[in-house]
Amino acid sequence: MSAQADLNAPLVLREDQNGLVTLTLNRPRHYNALSEEMLAALKTELDALANDETLRCVVLRAAGKAFCAGHDLRQMHGHLGEEDYYRQLFATCSGVMQSLLAVPVPVIAVIQGVATAAGCQLVASCDLAVATDSARFAVSGINAGLFCSTPSVALSRNVSAKRAFEMLVTARFIDAATAADWGLINQAVPEAGLDGAVTALATSIMEKSPAAIRHGKAMFYRQRQLPLDEAYRFAGEVMARNMMEADAAEGIDAFLNKRAAQWHR
Amino acid sequence: MSAQADLNAPLVLREDQNGLVTLTLNRPRHYNALSEEMLAALKTELDALANDETLRCVVLRAAGKAFCAGHDLRQMHGHLGEEDYYRQLFATCSGVMQSLLAVPVPVIAVIQGVATAAGCQLVASCDLAVATDSARFAVSGINAGLFCSTPSVALSRNVSAKRAFEMLVTARFIDAATAADWGLINQAVPEAGLDGAVTALATSIMEKSPAAIRHGKAMFYRQRQLPLDEAYRFAGEVMARNMMEADAAEGIDAFLNKRAAQWHR
Amino acid sequence: MSAQADLNAPLVLREDQNGLVTLTLNRPRHYNALSEEMLAALKTELDALANDETLRCVVLRAAGKAFCAGHDLRQMHGHLGEEDYYRQLFATCSGVMQSLLAVPVPVIAVIQGVATAAGCQLVASCDLAVATDSARFAVSGINAGLFCSTPSVALSRNVSAKRAFEMLVTARFIDAATAADWGLINQAVPEAGLDGAVTALATSIMEKSPAAIRHGKAMFYRQRQLPLDEAYRFAGEVMARNMMEADAAEGIDAFLNKRAAQWHR
Repeated sequence: MSAQADLNAPLVLREDQNGLVTLTLNRPRHYNALSEEMLAALKTELDALANDETLRCVVLRAAGKAFCAGHDLRQMHGHLGEEDYYRQLFATCSGVMQSLLAVPVPVIAVIQGVATAAGCQLVASCDLAVATDSARFAVSGINAGLFCSTPSVALSRNVSAKRAFEMLVTARFIDAATAADWGLINQAVPEAGLDGAVTALATSIMEKSPAAIRHGKAMFYRQRQLPLDEAYRFAGEVMARNMMEADAAEGIDAFLNKRAAQWHR
Repeated sequence: MSAQADLNAPLVLREDQNGLVTLTLNRPRHYNALSEEMLAALKTELDALANDETLRCVVLRAAGKAFCAGHDLRQMHGHLGEEDYYRQLFATCSGVMQSLLAVPVPVIAVIQGVATAAGCQLVASCDLAVATDSARFAVSGINAGLFCSTPSVALSRNVSAKRAFEMLVTARFIDAATAADWGLINQAVPEAGLDGAVTALATSIMEKSPAAIRHGKAMFYRQRQLPLDEAYRFAGEVMARNMMEADAAEGIDAFLNKRAAQWHR
Repeated sequence: MSAQADLNAPLVLREDQNGLVTLTLNRPRHYNALSEEMLAALKTELDALANDETLRCVVLRAAGKAFCAGHDLRQMHGHLGEEDYYRQLFATCSGVMQSLLAVPVPVIAVIQGVATAAGCQLVASCDLAVATDSARFAVSGINAGLFCSTPSVALSRNVSAKRAFEMLVTARFIDAATAADWGLINQAVPEAGLDGAVTALATSIMEKSPAAIRHGKAMFYRQRQLPLDEAYRFAGEVMARNMMEADAAEGIDAFLNKRAAQWHR
């Protein structure tokens, strides 16, 4: 693609396929940097998913050789001295990351190449992540004099303290196998197996009851932040409501009668 | 055992051996499902341990080929549409899980075969867990249209976010080696070595000062939920009280004089 | 060194080298036990670092065959029955551990030999840790009738629940490879490679912007304790202030122009 074509193309591509929405960051020549425009486009796409009742699963991938290189440093450099600009920029970016958790169905990050700084945060913020063996991850803002503070929020909720801290202060890259070992991603696969692994994971989710999956995602992150007794009270309420869905009656009946369940759509 | 014998036998067996209490879930033909009756029986046994001053360690195991298959889906199916029934059922089950933390001494889960849904939660809720190499773990309610919401509370306090989330939305089974790698269990051993491993672990605990073990267990989970400075204040208070026990004086004196300590019972 | 020389030497040695401060616990004959005097000396050294603007990185190591054997049991034994004494002792020790987090730059623990009880807590409380292959770790107070309650606070914020609990109730030693696998330390290296590994890690940190490193460390542990939205708000504020530093302007400009950054000191 020519540079001009790159600039005229949509920032984020959306593809729909039977309830599976694939969003593709589409600025490969800019390593899909999270410029103001890219953040706005991504936010628009994520918000549009909130009320899509046919939605079953989301895949977030990226065009080109890199997954995402984080913030657009050239654009940021154009606002030196404007503290309010930066405050707003990081608030916007944090909002996008939290929007991933607000998507009512699971979001799978698919990583090829590098995921750095806020790009690594994007991986950490998705529910699930599958990467090629050759993918690499870093929170490398510190190399440019800017500690990856907001990325550390997502990173440290996936990776243990000393590992996260080392990545943050050294800008060290970890490979995909290490990322899987540390819990930053679910799976590292050879490049030839990437699409197959993503399809298998998405299909496994889409075979389940849509209502139950939605109850579960809305519950999972909230309960994690509660003291144990409150977490149980909340999760028990959600589970009782889940039992009132037609799908639970169908699913349990199917299980007891050793037949395949037919979910309500 | 005949089906009839199965139904007449106690739901939970209790065996006492010098301060070691072994509780055995005893509905092997029903994969030790957590029916209302099983939950009540287990709660009764756990509550009875609270005031047993000779108690030193508890082992929770299960009869038959499976550890525990979670809730009794047939029983649940008999109450379709009764939201209050389910609310009460999940509250009761969550209460049993929290009772494991309230047992004043360490509880070791011993897992053979499968531990699914609330059965996997039972493993996650014990202080320690030893499994055979062939044991397998899943939070598979989603297969029946019911997201394992209350099991996710215990699971996500043992296993990192993306791993727990994947298990919850895919119903994927993990083997014992993976469960040990992810922190869901402490140890996976060949079947022939299971009893030996459990005895070794229980013995190691029972050789310690009973008073100190009780101070520690009562402190551990509470401090984990506190901010760092409050956690230190609380743990420091507990440790000062532990120092006022005869066992601490004896233990330190024994250490300084290179002799075996004689604990107060 | 003779026993007398040992007693006359400073409890904690301090060496300065271009912004790298090395603190060495210096009671090798006493396995660097954390006596009242050692805790006071360590606190004095750590507090002195708070206002040192040339400070870039701290290394905490220990003289002799052991890293640190925890509290001084002989000294503690001299105060049997004095609950207030112990309450004060554990509060002081907890204060020292928290002082490590208050040091404005990263602190790297360097472990040879054993690190037990509060010595293991010292490792857990540093930001980073490098150990020799032959180092070993335990929270073994339970062997002396004293559950490692305050060490459990730091340990359980590094190591998953069941692993931490097992270490606490069994006093089991784990080797350096296991400690690295469980996240208690960052790296285990052959003894001959220890100094090189520590220098490489410290150098990697000291090559970064001092201002950015300080913003990051002050932010990291605080955000970990906050709910997600508050953590993002706080981290975003810190990052906006970081962008107002001359180093961020310099770092981003250097990055965009593919040149090495020159940090403000």
